[in-house]
Amino acid sequence: AVANEQTERNCSLTPPYLPSTAVNTTLQLKELRALMSPLSISAYIIPDTDAHLSEYISPRDARLAFMTGFTGSAGTAVVTPTKAVLWTDSRYWVQAERQMDCNWDLKRDVSIMSVAEWLISEVPPGGEIGFDPFLFSLKTQEDYSVNLMSSNRSLKSMPANLVDQVWKERPSIPPGGLIQRSWQMKVEQIRSQMTDSPYKPTALLLSALDETAWLFNMRGSDIPYNPFFYSYTLLTMNEIWLFVHMERITDELKVYLNTSCDGPLCVQLKSYDSVLDDLKMYVDQPGIKVWIGTEYTNYALYEIITPEDKLMTSSYSPVLTTKAVKDETEQQILRDAHVRDAVAVIQLLMWLEKVVPEGKETELTAAKYVDTCRRRKDNRGPSFDTISASGPNAALAHYSPTAENNRKLTVDEMYLVDSGGQYLDGTTDITRTVHWGTPTPMQKEAFTRVLMGNIEISRTIFPSGTRGVNMEMLGRRALWEVGLNYGHGTGHGVGNYFGVHEWPVGFQSNNIPFREGMFTSIEPGYYKENDFGIRIEDVAVIVPVTTKYGHNYLTFDTVSLVPYDRKLIDTSLLSSEQLQWLNSYYETIRKLVGLELDQQELHEEKDWMLRNTEPFVAPGSSASVSSSSLTLILLTVTGIN
Amino acid sequence: AVANEQTERNCSLTPPYLPSTAVNTTLQLKELRALMSPLSISAYIIPDTDAHLSEYISPRDARLAFMTGFTGSAGTAVVTPTKAVLWTDSRYWVQAERQMDCNWDLKRDVSIMSVAEWLISEVPPGGEIGFDPFLFSLKTQEDYSVNLMSSNRSLKSMPANLVDQVWKERPSIPPGGLIQRSWQMKVEQIRSQMTDSPYKPTALLLSALDETAWLFNMRGSDIPYNPFFYSYTLLTMNEIWLFVHMERITDELKVYLNTSCDGPLCVQLKSYDSVLDDLKMYVDQPGIKVWIGTEYTNYALYEIITPEDKLMTSSYSPVLTTKAVKDETEQQILRDAHVRDAVAVIQLLMWLEKVVPEGKETELTAAKYVDTCRRRKDNRGPSFDTISASGPNAALAHYSPTAENNRKLTVDEMYLVDSGGQYLDGTTDITRTVHWGTPTPMQKEAFTRVLMGNIEISRTIFPSGTRGVNMEMLGRRALWEVGLNYGHGTGHGVGNYFGVHEWPVGFQSNNIPFREGMFTSIEPGYYKENDFGIRIEDVAVIVPVTTKYGHNYLTFDTVSLVPYDRKLIDTSLLSSEQLQWLNSYYETIRKLVGLELDQQELHEEKDWMLRNTEPFVAPGSSASVSSSSLTLILLTVTGIN
Repeated sequence: AVANEQTERNCSLTPPYLPSTAVNTTLQLKELRALMSPLSISAYIIPDTDAHLSEYISPRDARLAFMTGFTGSAGTAVVTPTKAVLWTDSRYWVQAERQMDCNWDLKRDVSIMSVAEWLISEVPPGGEIGFDPFLFSLKTQEDYSVNLMSSNRSLKSMPANLVDQVWKERPSIPPGGLIQRSWQMKVEQIRSQMTDSPYKPTALLLSALDETAWLFNMRGSDIPYNPFFYSYTLLTMNEIWLFVHMERITDELKVYLNTSCDGPLCVQLKSYDSVLDDLKMYVDQPGIKVWIGTEYTNYALYEIITPEDKLMTSSYSPVLTTKAVKDETEQQILRDAHVRDAVAVIQLLMWLEKVVPEGKETELTAAKYVDTCRRRKDNRGPSFDTISASGPNAALAHYSPTAENNRKLTVDEMYLVDSGGQYLDGTTDITRTVHWGTPTPMQKEAFTRVLMGNIEISRTIFPSGTRGVNMEMLGRRALWEVGLNYGHGTGHGVGNYFGVHEWPVGFQSNNIPFREGMFTSIEPGYYKENDFGIRIEDVAVIVPVTTKYGHNYLTFDTVSLVPYDRKLIDTSLLSSEQLQWLNSYYETIRKLVGLELDQQELHEEKDWMLRNTEPFVAPGSSASVSSSSLTLILLTVTGIN
Repeated sequence: AVANEQTERNCSLTPPYLPSTAVNTTLQLKELRALMSPLSISAYIIPDTDAHLSEYISPRDARLAFMTGFTGSAGTAVVTPTKAVLWTDSRYWVQAERQMDCNWDLKRDVSIMSVAEWLISEVPPGGEIGFDPFLFSLKTQEDYSVNLMSSNRSLKSMPANLVDQVWKERPSIPPGGLIQRSWQMKVEQIRSQMTDSPYKPTALLLSALDETAWLFNMRGSDIPYNPFFYSYTLLTMNEIWLFVHMERITDELKVYLNTSCDGPLCVQLKSYDSVLDDLKMYVDQPGIKVWIGTEYTNYALYEIITPEDKLMTSSYSPVLTTKAVKDETEQQILRDAHVRDAVAVIQLLMWLEKVVPEGKETELTAAKYVDTCRRRKDNRGPSFDTISASGPNAALAHYSPTAENNRKLTVDEMYLVDSGGQYLDGTTDITRTVHWGTPTPMQKEAFTRVLMGNIEISRTIFPSGTRGVNMEMLGRRALWEVGLNYGHGTGHGVGNYFGVHEWPVGFQSNNIPFREGMFTSIEPGYYKENDFGIRIEDVAVIVPVTTKYGHNYLTFDTVSLVPYDRKLIDTSLLSSEQLQWLNSYYETIRKLVGLELDQQELHEEKDWMLRNTEPFVAPGSSASVSSSSLTLILLTVTGIN
């Protein structure tokens, strides 16, 4: 009977029990071990990323899933001649037990220290551990090295990956996004930063996929949710080398890139697979210095830029730091995308309000509905897998509904929806949490305190150059006051038809300081295990603000334009400044989204929006607002007496 | 005529003009260059610190002042066969022009990059630059190396300093401080942290002076303001090597340190000057690993711990991180010291209020007065050079009055006093800003906003382990709102009869996370150039707090107990939470300082304190508090009508 089926493997039985979801990996392991044997390596490491250290990876780069059966987004596998082990974090332990067969051990940890300790215990002294340097960042390589140091086991860089799969398709690269700065202008901008650097780099190597996509205003579809294509760029003062799969470049694109001329603004197309050889050739010349951003350059490229004085490093390439600041056009089109996106989310919330009490909708149908609402002319699909989570599911980090865990939506549970779209003009990302019945006092208090966190960050005035990490406690402070907190970051950059997590902007310690024109999400939350989850996420742009005495001060202007669930707001907890911010935000929604709803002739949605953006009145405010008029009345009365 | 005398040198005249404050350095430079010549170095670097990277240095370590004439606390000098240059920051430019003769050039910069660029321009290719590795931290050495990299100029480590001076006196080391944890207990505590470390260190090397002073509960007088003595310690699991000047150790101290026995809790005295040789001997053994804190270990010690796998590093030694958390006794005696210290500051403020209108007092007489008030049984002098600054002087960072710049105190200017004492039970540090006349609206607003910053940090509730750097913006936020800010840090640790700046506690990015039992200053400010300066500094201890839902939350409990100038507080800017905090703080002052004043029979001071700690009433609070009664009155009146 299906109802009684154990969903997780049990390797202690003889024979082992395997659920139907488990993948038989015997063949893959046999093949890998056959390849390892002649190379005399004692272990082989299989990471979860691609050669560009991408957050999302193409199916062709899903080596970890291919080897282990486990499809979670984070993990490391190690294979020795006799053992096979997967390391992953607590989000994925259940999933790993469901998907892996008994060839694999599961380690409930993700630190490189833990992997290294296991390697020291399994690899004999003097043994070598193989890894693909294209799939290691500098930091990953360094962390392994430090942890293996003085153990007499060593890493062996093996650029030909032993788990490589066949490329299934390489579609031609379409032109992408709305016109922003021309690529020639961007090239000049980056070159002038190279000239200005006191270290005098002669070349800049771009390794992250969004770096090349941004520089040339091109988009692709190699990576799910992110409109990127496989590429590297080497930019010198006189030349531009673009490494791509040559057969994907159309004639139209060749014209666009000036590939037939010979000059500093003519692009030279190079084969994607020749990047190591061509870079080596460049590095072998005298007097060169290659600038790399260490966060997104893989170890294979890094290790051939030698000797050390040929290398110049910064955490992020000048392309990433320049991209982070949107110019006026980019700001406006990204704002516009959010107005259209608000309509989709409002349509979802209005629909759910109507249909949930009927008891037929689920997390999956809700996710599908919002995706459908977004699907319009300039939309290129969701910007990530929609998180549509009811009740306890919302307390799980990174939860997305599947056929297996799909939960019915009811008026008795809170519901959290975190979704976004890729539009030709911009990328969106918004989270709303709602309750269709009667929330508990604790749910209402927690929601209000999360909202207070969102507002406190949003309304803060700060000097240009302040770091997000030094302000993000404002998102937590109202929660801390009553002993609540959340375990994730407080926000990340977003782009113009780019990654939904656009580094290096945000509130983390390795993000760059805030400047005018950057966009970031603001997303405090609270999660009660096995019960409910709250997150309120908006995207905001950093704008200048006039202060009484100073110059160069900034604040946030929220561009996500969807009202919060009124039922969950306890206005008695809000300060008058917070209430004022909320009312002014609602006025903006009425104005901007109202216009869009009118244009789209969505009258029911407009009514819903107006109902949900009624101004809030401060509790007891009639007394305090009119204290002077009260005094007047009293005086009058006194006069009468 | 003296009135017309130029106070700064003018090297462009022939002959150059030198003020009477300039020091003739021709002889020193000649001697140094004579020493440099046979060593074939092209330049020699003279830093501003000592072998323990101390904040304050002993006169015998004042090599920079000896060579240059310049006595400021921060600077770097470089001497070549033909040139001599001093780098210092803007605080000291005027002072340098007054104290240096024309042998010296002044560079208005302090970055190592700037020094290195100059070195590259002056030192011929292939040339070597000498430095004393005892006076460089690891980071300083690394910064020079990075900046000289690929320039074909190199650093040359020369442990025998070319500018060394004769030790004038080495007094015996007195026993120090009130009994806290016994040194044997501390040794066991540190050894257990060594055992727990996964890196299995065999020894811990202590290089900062407060590390050894803390470990053995000993104090000295080698360094101004800090009760330290020259020393190093090498602690292994079986042995304790204490490096000191042997002749300073009394028989009493030998008994205290168990120097005549042979065991893990017996101290072996070693000569201070043999630290390099003895460490080398230890490092040459097989299977050893030496733990150092990189922030306070000099390069001379670091460079002999080779190969790399004999080294274990953390930013701070376990002694510094353990010392940061005060146990219950240490907390109580440090609180007690602050009660007695409050009496001294109250005596100063009361006296100034009386005498300033008479027009005879100055910054210097005020500084002297507070030092005198502190001088009581358990006081060992000031914990730093008192900052007593009136009007524009208070806007200068690190200002202390001298005969030259001393300013008269008047009822027309604001006055800032930042002072502290060394007591046998604890170190204090407090700043108050006052106005004896009528402050301008801007002064009042700025003061109130600085106070709001102090209160916002003090009343914040946060999870244990939160970093100060992630909360310190609360000290700035009320200022930022109107475009004001301050250019210094927000606070630093303090100790039990130790350094007044006790690292690694505080609000800087390289401070460790806050835990229960740590003490830190909280000191926002605002400085208007050529006009006035405001700082409000209190010391607070981190204490547990009960929250509605959570565990392990902390807050600050202010232990500095002196009221703020009421005249400068605009209560209409304060939130009700801030007012409430202020009133509750004043209640604490009344209770704790009231008792102390009673005991010392200081009746006038008690009256002054009570007057200055009257509870504040919220502006318009009668209206808002009694809004219900107002309504009642209205109803009554309506009833009458």
